[in-house]
Amino acid sequence: MLYNLIDVLGTIAFAISGVLVAMDKRLDVFGVFIIAFVTAVGGGTLRDVLIGSTPVGWMTQPNYVVVIVITVVISILFVDRLKNFRKSLFLFDTIGIGLYTMIGIQKGLDTGLLPIMCIALGTMTACFGGVIRDILCNEIPVIFRREIYATVCILGGGIYFLMLQFPINPTIAYITGILCIIVMRLLAVKFKIALPNIYSK
Amino acid sequence: MLYNLIDVLGTIAFAISGVLVAMDKRLDVFGVFIIAFVTAVGGGTLRDVLIGSTPVGWMTQPNYVVVIVITVVISILFVDRLKNFRKSLFLFDTIGIGLYTMIGIQKGLDTGLLPIMCIALGTMTACFGGVIRDILCNEIPVIFRREIYATVCILGGGIYFLMLQFPINPTIAYITGILCIIVMRLLAVKFKIALPNIYSK
Amino acid sequence: MLYNLIDVLGTIAFAISGVLVAMDKRLDVFGVFIIAFVTAVGGGTLRDVLIGSTPVGWMTQPNYVVVIVITVVISILFVDRLKNFRKSLFLFDTIGIGLYTMIGIQKGLDTGLLPIMCIALGTMTACFGGVIRDILCNEIPVIFRREIYATVCILGGGIYFLMLQFPINPTIAYITGILCIIVMRLLAVKFKIALPNIYSK
Repeated sequence: MLYNLIDVLGTIAFAISGVLVAMDKRLDVFGVFIIAFVTAVGGGTLRDVLIGSTPVGWMTQPNYVVVIVITVVISILFVDRLKNFRKSLFLFDTIGIGLYTMIGIQKGLDTGLLPIMCIALGTMTACFGGVIRDILCNEIPVIFRREIYATVCILGGGIYFLMLQFPINPTIAYITGILCIIVMRLLAVKFKIALPNIYSK
Repeated sequence: MLYNLIDVLGTIAFAISGVLVAMDKRLDVFGVFIIAFVTAVGGGTLRDVLIGSTPVGWMTQPNYVVVIVITVVISILFVDRLKNFRKSLFLFDTIGIGLYTMIGIQKGLDTGLLPIMCIALGTMTACFGGVIRDILCNEIPVIFRREIYATVCILGGGIYFLMLQFPINPTIAYITGILCIIVMRLLAVKFKIALPNIYSK
Repeated sequence: MLYNLIDVLGTIAFAISGVLVAMDKRLDVFGVFIIAFVTAVGGGTLRDVLIGSTPVGWMTQPNYVVVIVITVVISILFVDRLKNFRKSLFLFDTIGIGLYTMIGIQKGLDTGLLPIMCIALGTMTACFGGVIRDILCNEIPVIFRREIYATVCILGGGIYFLMLQFPINPTIAYITGILCIIVMRLLAVKFKIALPNIYSK
């Protein structure tokens, strides 16, 4: 129940980020919908394709399509007011990232992958919707250029597998993983923590 | 027989559209071939990957490769005269879109997907070759920016499923779906019907 | 043993080419790693997805991830000195292309595909890591614009299948295919052989 609510909120936040980028590029209403859709389900779709879990997730769960259509319509109608919800959107987005990472890790475990591959899969689930969005909009993906984003997914996944080494209830480890990702991202943005600069000039 | 002929004409039209975009970007002959190939088979390939129908279609049907190679060679040799066939090309392209949409829908039904997902799959089959073409050529996909294109696929698919509610021969519904897409696209282009503008300024 | 060594050298060369393109775009350290990773494993991943060999190769072979991580770290630390190894890198890269092409062809044969499709699959394995790298970096893929690169993969694959028509030991045909690709590419670059120009002006 709570899980479903978080999933829906994450989907909405991801879809809205797609709408904003697409409208910035002045795409037509079909383009805006596709970008929103791809941003919301692209990460999970890539994950499912790479592990061979087909038909991919959203094809058998029409509720995603419904949620995204409604989100796109409302976002386009009230795009000027979306700015007022910037903070809420950022929070939903962060919650979505935490949840999507752990969903991807779980899928990897079910497929029998090693922990390091599960973490890669979880990070991909959380981050590659945005990568595909940026490619379709002809931009270098924003997560390759700035902001601690994928890094917190990787760290959160690592913490989860570390906890599994101890006699801890898996559900508690699962929830702790999600919370760690959320808290680390909030802290990173609040204190403007960035990846080390690798360029001398 | 007729079906195969239409399929070949559609493939040719899609491949030529790839050649024209690629030559506009002054790619070398290998690049032109790849773009033509991807434009012609990209939509069906994405569809097959997403539903897990592998090896993907063109890999087991070498006739596609043969048709596309011949199309590319002839197109490059006579590129200056291609303009004279603009209207025929547009017609083949439109017929291809109608056919590909219904092929995709049929594949979705065979996979046991819901009607709304079948329509998404059909639209993808018809439109995503062009999307991949534009991404490889470093452009924002043209169908996200203008022209009623995907929209007629969605409407045509909707009409098909509507007809299936009534005691109508499925083959007739199938053909009607294709014809509706073709006619709607021709009308939309003739009367310059566009999607509603969502930008206030 | 030798085979594994070549595979590792090829992976390193591909990863370094990714690091160089990514640093040229001034991506952050996470972006550099992803581009290096995608360049090294992207071609094989696309191949595995298209033939339905999932989970895709690198997911079950963590040594690729380890090799790439080490390569990226060393490359970033000593990026200024990488120029001195330009010739070695080009050689590794060429060896990698020869090997990857034949690995892809072998996978195609195991899947029961026709020779022409196996050659397409081999060429894809060798070349599409670079294509995905360029798309992620918002460039038109370099292999569509210049340099005999894919063409030597196609020719090498053709030579391999030609040899299989004669009573030749398959392993010898396999190694000859790899060597042909390597030699043809070295000659093409040395003598500046290019694809015929298809543009009149």
